[in-house]
Amino acid sequence: MDALAAPVLTPLRRIAHPLGDIQHALKASDAGFAGFGEAYFTRVLPGAVKGWKRHRQMVLNLVVPCGAVRFYLRHDDGRQLAFLLGDEPHSVAGCQYARLSVPPGWWVAFEGVGPALNQVLNLASMAHDPAEADNLPLQSFALEPGA
Amino acid sequence: MDALAAPVLTPLRRIAHPLGDIQHALKASDAGFAGFGEAYFTRVLPGAVKGWKRHRQMVLNLVVPCGAVRFYLRHDDGRQLAFLLGDEPHSVAGCQYARLSVPPGWWVAFEGVGPALNQVLNLASMAHDPAEADNLPLQSFALEPGA
Repeated sequence: MDALAAPVLTPLRRIAHPLGDIQHALKASDAGFAGFGEAYFTRVLPGAVKGWKRHRQMVLNLVVPCGAVRFYLRHDDGRQLAFLLGDEPHSVAGCQYARLSVPPGWWVAFEGVGPALNQVLNLASMAHDPAEADNLPLQSFALEPGA
Repeated sequence: MDALAAPVLTPLRRIAHPLGDIQHALKASDAGFAGFGEAYFTRVLPGAVKGWKRHRQMVLNLVVPCGAVRFYLRHDDGRQLAFLLGDEPHSVAGCQYARLSVPPGWWVAFEGVGPALNQVLNLASMAHDPAEADNLPLQSFALEPGA
């Protein structure tokens, strides 16, 4: 697997089913897969913003199966990106059901945009290890809308 | 990793956070982990039941991050089990926030028990492959409450 040079957004399939839909997330054969270390959920309340955190080793694979979440990414070299992920077409307008793959080295913040439950799944390349992550207060950077 | 001899329920941590809680799901170092092939979500509407399906190769690792879902497991040797997984303590009474690991060879059905969104994450040992799964109509077996 080649290392990701930059964050990548990959649209995901949602398969309609009369008893409850199926939503793809990640296959080991997908681009952006960098090994499986841990899967965990993070919720973010409507209007709340969590951040900033930068992983030095972990590759993130982020999916928002319900609600909508805006991710802000910032690199120390000046690059800035933003993505609105969510439960398309059932959550807020403009959100996309997609996977956001983030290589190490990017500051990440994320905001609860949906009006109720906003849930993030991170399919991470390694298990949680506070020693490989840096944290800065939310006020450290502006929440730029991105390109 | 030793193969699972039978389904295993593993309680999971939920870490309270003022901006939105964190919910554990699976680490590669956990018992029951049998490799990563694919992660996908399945929803099941309130009162709906999906099943029966039996995987001949896939190991399932099932987590219910929101709502509540009852899983019915049945082996051809006569063993029957049932588990109520869910967003404890925010969903229905008696549900448990836990991971259900299911080895190959078990018939599985599952029912939406929560009143709204019931979401299942399967962290599967292999990618979806219809050739390794058998299906039977829901009417084939009774939905027994289990031990």
